[in-house]
Amino acid sequence: MATINSNFLKLKAGYLFPEIARRVRVYTEENPDKAARIIRCGIGDVTEPLPAAVVKAMHEGVEEMADRATFKGYGPEQGYEFLRQAIVDNQFADLGISADEVFISDGSKCDTGNILDIFGKGNVIAITDPVYPVYVDTNVMAGNTGDADEKGAYEGLLYLPCNAANNFVADVPAEKADIIYLCFPNNPTGAVATRAQLEAWVKYAKENDAIILFDAAYEAFIQDPAIPRSIFEIEGARDVALEFRSFSKNGGFTGVRCGYIVIPKTVTAKADDGTRVPLHQLWSRRHSTKFNGASYPVQKAAAAVFSPEGKQQVSALIEHYMGNAKLLREAAAAAGLPVFGGENAPYVWVGCPAGLTSWDMFDKMLGEAQVVITPGSGFGSAGEGYFRISAFNSRANVEEVCRRLKALVA
Amino acid sequence: MATINSNFLKLKAGYLFPEIARRVRVYTEENPDKAARIIRCGIGDVTEPLPAAVVKAMHEGVEEMADRATFKGYGPEQGYEFLRQAIVDNQFADLGISADEVFISDGSKCDTGNILDIFGKGNVIAITDPVYPVYVDTNVMAGNTGDADEKGAYEGLLYLPCNAANNFVADVPAEKADIIYLCFPNNPTGAVATRAQLEAWVKYAKENDAIILFDAAYEAFIQDPAIPRSIFEIEGARDVALEFRSFSKNGGFTGVRCGYIVIPKTVTAKADDGTRVPLHQLWSRRHSTKFNGASYPVQKAAAAVFSPEGKQQVSALIEHYMGNAKLLREAAAAAGLPVFGGENAPYVWVGCPAGLTSWDMFDKMLGEAQVVITPGSGFGSAGEGYFRISAFNSRANVEEVCRRLKALVA
Repeated sequence: MATINSNFLKLKAGYLFPEIARRVRVYTEENPDKAARIIRCGIGDVTEPLPAAVVKAMHEGVEEMADRATFKGYGPEQGYEFLRQAIVDNQFADLGISADEVFISDGSKCDTGNILDIFGKGNVIAITDPVYPVYVDTNVMAGNTGDADEKGAYEGLLYLPCNAANNFVADVPAEKADIIYLCFPNNPTGAVATRAQLEAWVKYAKENDAIILFDAAYEAFIQDPAIPRSIFEIEGARDVALEFRSFSKNGGFTGVRCGYIVIPKTVTAKADDGTRVPLHQLWSRRHSTKFNGASYPVQKAAAAVFSPEGKQQVSALIEHYMGNAKLLREAAAAAGLPVFGGENAPYVWVGCPAGLTSWDMFDKMLGEAQVVITPGSGFGSAGEGYFRISAFNSRANVEEVCRRLKALVA
Repeated sequence: MATINSNFLKLKAGYLFPEIARRVRVYTEENPDKAARIIRCGIGDVTEPLPAAVVKAMHEGVEEMADRATFKGYGPEQGYEFLRQAIVDNQFADLGISADEVFISDGSKCDTGNILDIFGKGNVIAITDPVYPVYVDTNVMAGNTGDADEKGAYEGLLYLPCNAANNFVADVPAEKADIIYLCFPNNPTGAVATRAQLEAWVKYAKENDAIILFDAAYEAFIQDPAIPRSIFEIEGARDVALEFRSFSKNGGFTGVRCGYIVIPKTVTAKADDGTRVPLHQLWSRRHSTKFNGASYPVQKAAAAVFSPEGKQQVSALIEHYMGNAKLLREAAAAAGLPVFGGENAPYVWVGCPAGLTSWDMFDKMLGEAQVVITPGSGFGSAGEGYFRISAFNSRANVEEVCRRLKALVA
């Protein structure tokens, strides 16, 4: 008799974004006359076309596949050297990372989910609250939690509350954790961690023999030069941290799919027999056994993000989205709502009007203003009373969202 | 203290194909004058360029990403409707499969590895021997086995020996299994299962409340019209089977990356609380939580495999590779070696000359004939004494391999 992984039955409702999509679909079916008015600032999905340099490189990659002499079959599971080297040269030049410590994948969502394959059972998992739901749900699936309570908090996870009091950056806890998920610039709150805050986390990880899973998918949006862009800017991090990065939000690759993990060879954790095993070795085995390399034209395209033209074009995209974030911040503040994030991240994190829950505000924004936002409680119970507005949109749409928000709330 | 998944430490050596690559690299370094002579018939990797219809569609997909009006961000995790519908229309039209039972991915290696996420611990896993190593290694990683013995067989797996006596098609076992991996046309042996043999497996699965994981990645190579191309041609299979398919070997997508799983909504397995849960629901949750859709231009390209031009071009590719297989069969037979497969599959499975192990023959073929083959023992202990030749190559290379094989062995 075949059995299923019953941990899946502990999962609450749908994954957040499919649930949002479902509500929008229902609303559209019931209000077909309003469908054209809907502006989507929910899921953090880019809206602008791929940079021209990326398009050109991807075409070239396709063309190589059309000619026997340049055709590429199975690529290296870890990714092509040309892309891994470009990443190191452009993003980790002075941080002691080498190209063979970079693993190319088809995206950070996959990486942040799949990484649990290499860890043991019984680790104490620390996550911030609110948090990117993938971290939580994949731990539930892996059996690292008990059941959820009525607020949606899972037994066995160590939640690190983020709130207005700590400016949405979690302090190191008094409890011992073994694996810690950190995401800066943060999804969903847009918060960033200072160097001192990251130093405290690395110190904590060293003291507790813990591993930091550092998600830097939004690194490109950092404006403040004092804010670290990589955990590896912190001394000692190369012994205790992995870093996830993505081309989704800088190069606009949400539909193209490419990400990577940086795993220094010096990061180890304990096996059951007490030996210390490099995580690099484990992920290398996992990656070459359960993954077959990212698409070749996609890797060509990703490398073009680092070409001189690509860099300029990406900069222009970032500037565009951060201009949107500024407008959204200002509009929410003008409407009298508490505002966080949006200064070094493409997400603006806003307190709901008094008396409204996150899903109340979602329904109100959709029903009365035809704007899709993301309810803060979808990211964890500490997100209740907040909502996230994504700055990924055209300027015209963002200006219209600002007008509607002010009209709705003022 | 963070701990690792110690099951990884049970894995033997490297995954087979990286190990082959390593030996070829060492040989090339030590014999630089022979490097140009090397012909690779090891890993089953296509060599001919993408079909023109596929190239055209992929360029169009890239072009859509270059224009704001047609740009695609995050796609549906399950894959675009246009591709899922094309698959059903072209491959499952009369088999009762609907488009929402198809899940698009970035390849079958990922799918066959990741599928274990949705199953419980304690299932008895049956695999054929020899077998595609991914099935075994992912079960080891998942903790579904004990340690390996000196022959590389893992405690706790139910091995189904395939050999010359059963023409490399396993009979249903006397023991009860819960999850059964079947691959037809088979990698590595090139064997195919008759309708009666598959009926016996479906009957066995029903009687034992077991699930069949049917890997049909090589379906396009079936020449004999009496051989089923899909497990869903067998009555009752829609209650007990999943099917894996790929664009790698028909469309030449090994470097492009696209595959899919068909999961009928009627397939269920038991939860710890005794309820029966549809695997479709579980995989849908897994896929939308740990995967973010396949690359849009890749999905466009995959759909073009089913266009009228695409079908013609794929047929020509299959005919080319199967012509190679025929030559390789004939050459091995002429050299006096026992020959299997290669009639409905792109792999020819050959008995080693007397006294040679599989790796002996690998080293001999590489060192004396500069031909890379795959040692049968790399696929399991029952593969010892055999080697696999891949028919994926140019005609000229295959003819040369035939000459060298005959010269070496005769």
